[in-house]
Amino acid sequence: MAETNGSLTDCACIHGRYNLKFVESHRKSHRSIVRVRYAETDQMGVVYYANYLVWMEVARVEYCQAIGFRYREMEIEDGIFLAVAESHCRYVSPARFDDEVLIQTRVTDVSRRFVSFDYEMSVDGRRVSTGRTRHIFLGRDLRPVRLPDKYLDLFPAPERE
Amino acid sequence: MAETNGSLTDCACIHGRYNLKFVESHRKSHRSIVRVRYAETDQMGVVYYANYLVWMEVARVEYCQAIGFRYREMEIEDGIFLAVAESHCRYVSPARFDDEVLIQTRVTDVSRRFVSFDYEMSVDGRRVSTGRTRHIFLGRDLRPVRLPDKYLDLFPAPERE
Amino acid sequence: MAETNGSLTDCACIHGRYNLKFVESHRKSHRSIVRVRYAETDQMGVVYYANYLVWMEVARVEYCQAIGFRYREMEIEDGIFLAVAESHCRYVSPARFDDEVLIQTRVTDVSRRFVSFDYEMSVDGRRVSTGRTRHIFLGRDLRPVRLPDKYLDLFPAPERE
Amino acid sequence: MAETNGSLTDCACIHGRYNLKFVESHRKSHRSIVRVRYAETDQMGVVYYANYLVWMEVARVEYCQAIGFRYREMEIEDGIFLAVAESHCRYVSPARFDDEVLIQTRVTDVSRRFVSFDYEMSVDGRRVSTGRTRHIFLGRDLRPVRLPDKYLDLFPAPERE
Repeated sequence: MAETNGSLTDCACIHGRYNLKFVESHRKSHRSIVRVRYAETDQMGVVYYANYLVWMEVARVEYCQAIGFRYREMEIEDGIFLAVAESHCRYVSPARFDDEVLIQTRVTDVSRRFVSFDYEMSVDGRRVSTGRTRHIFLGRDLRPVRLPDKYLDLFPAPERE
Repeated sequence: MAETNGSLTDCACIHGRYNLKFVESHRKSHRSIVRVRYAETDQMGVVYYANYLVWMEVARVEYCQAIGFRYREMEIEDGIFLAVAESHCRYVSPARFDDEVLIQTRVTDVSRRFVSFDYEMSVDGRRVSTGRTRHIFLGRDLRPVRLPDKYLDLFPAPERE
Repeated sequence: MAETNGSLTDCACIHGRYNLKFVESHRKSHRSIVRVRYAETDQMGVVYYANYLVWMEVARVEYCQAIGFRYREMEIEDGIFLAVAESHCRYVSPARFDDEVLIQTRVTDVSRRFVSFDYEMSVDGRRVSTGRTRHIFLGRDLRPVRLPDKYLDLFPAPERE
Repeated sequence: MAETNGSLTDCACIHGRYNLKFVESHRKSHRSIVRVRYAETDQMGVVYYANYLVWMEVARVEYCQAIGFRYREMEIEDGIFLAVAESHCRYVSPARFDDEVLIQTRVTDVSRRFVSFDYEMSVDGRRVSTGRTRHIFLGRDLRPVRLPDKYLDLFPAPERE
């Protein structure tokens, strides 16, 4: 991929993995943008709370691609799945229909068994939520496996928090 | 299953396949009930239109079980999937959060290759929508297969419309 | 509601608020059951992780009704919304299509400004996940409000953990 | 909007309404792209059928914006909602996780009371589905209203089919 460079540095993806634009921003974080769908709102007039986890997935998949592997291929070719072990989300202020949500994603911890991601979501500079997910690597039988070097080496050394 | 009797006659399922209560109603139709989830509403204050298709799936799975086979087992044991070829829905009046939606499901056409379902959805006697789905049977490779007799025989002869 | 009795004691709701069956179980917890929809699975063959939050909503709404108020009416009549401030979920083992998921819901903390719920989800006695949500009460303008006595009094004194 | 020009001619929107790129293509059709989310797949390994209707919504909203009005503002400022009266979808071949789905959207019929859209969805030139939705304009009370000239005039004269 032209838009990646081995170690993930200061990249930002403006809407979609194939239209990446890189912006100098936060070191080792990745930027994704999702636009709020009508389907994602609820009758409170704001985004339904479970949908933030869907956005985290979108951001996580884009992050993985940005560091050089496509999640889809890892599943198909290596039979390795990134299963969620834990999710956490703080809802700071509401996101609304048609809002453009910027998601900054970082890896905070990675090993052969686990990887953790942090997410910051904002709309026009206003923070809407923060999230964290922790994952384990599973094989096709949904049992834990050790992540091969070829994937592990792609992850940046986690930031110190 | 205690609640089925080979040919599906006049059964109604009140909320959940294991708590079936039978009500004399429409011959060869099956009744399901779903309660509207908050997640299913949108900012118009009514149910988002794609969710009616989810309810049709719930009703269809219950219908299949009521005539004697569990959809899950057909997938796992026989590797046969019921893929949707076509869906249609008319939205007559809105359904809202916490509404109890009655879904009456009928098979309108069935063969070894295809099956079609009709759905009528109502809240307290008020019609909210009507739907229709048409399906083909696929194998694990997602290619068309012919439905084995053991499943085909479970379907009632379709109603004349 | 026939099925409630002021203070919530040992109730269990088997699939749907109108078909409640009470089971002596955990004091001051409420039991809900959801059946896994096909729509809720993903290509890993298990339930997609955001859907557990939808189930927590279903369980929470049922809990609220079981202690004597209907969430829908609080929104419409009093203009009070239960907004999620935080969610957390641990995914212990996978839930699959057609599984019957038992959700045990407790209030762990409640005041005029906040309420927290705990959820335990299991399938046939096997724990699939645990969750926690924290909520604030908002008015129609989405600003915090204090919960009126008539609602606050319905909550049981939280369990000591 | 810089990217629109009164009558909608030959525009294509590559992922997101603010990053529009115009491509000479089908007269009076609009092109949107969505990337398949993991959340949108089901255990058959393909996109769950209700999600095509969500994509149609995304494409419809982008279409509306491309001809010069933002759907969000019509709701907020004029209290006019575009309610779905009917949906139809043919599922031609499966879309899968991470696929880039091109959606071509056209208005096939428009009046002060109704508007109809057609959608063609494809992945790498392979058609995955076709859809059609029909809508009515509603006021805040969810009763039909007549679309004001300022909006009606934005729509192109529908194509003859």
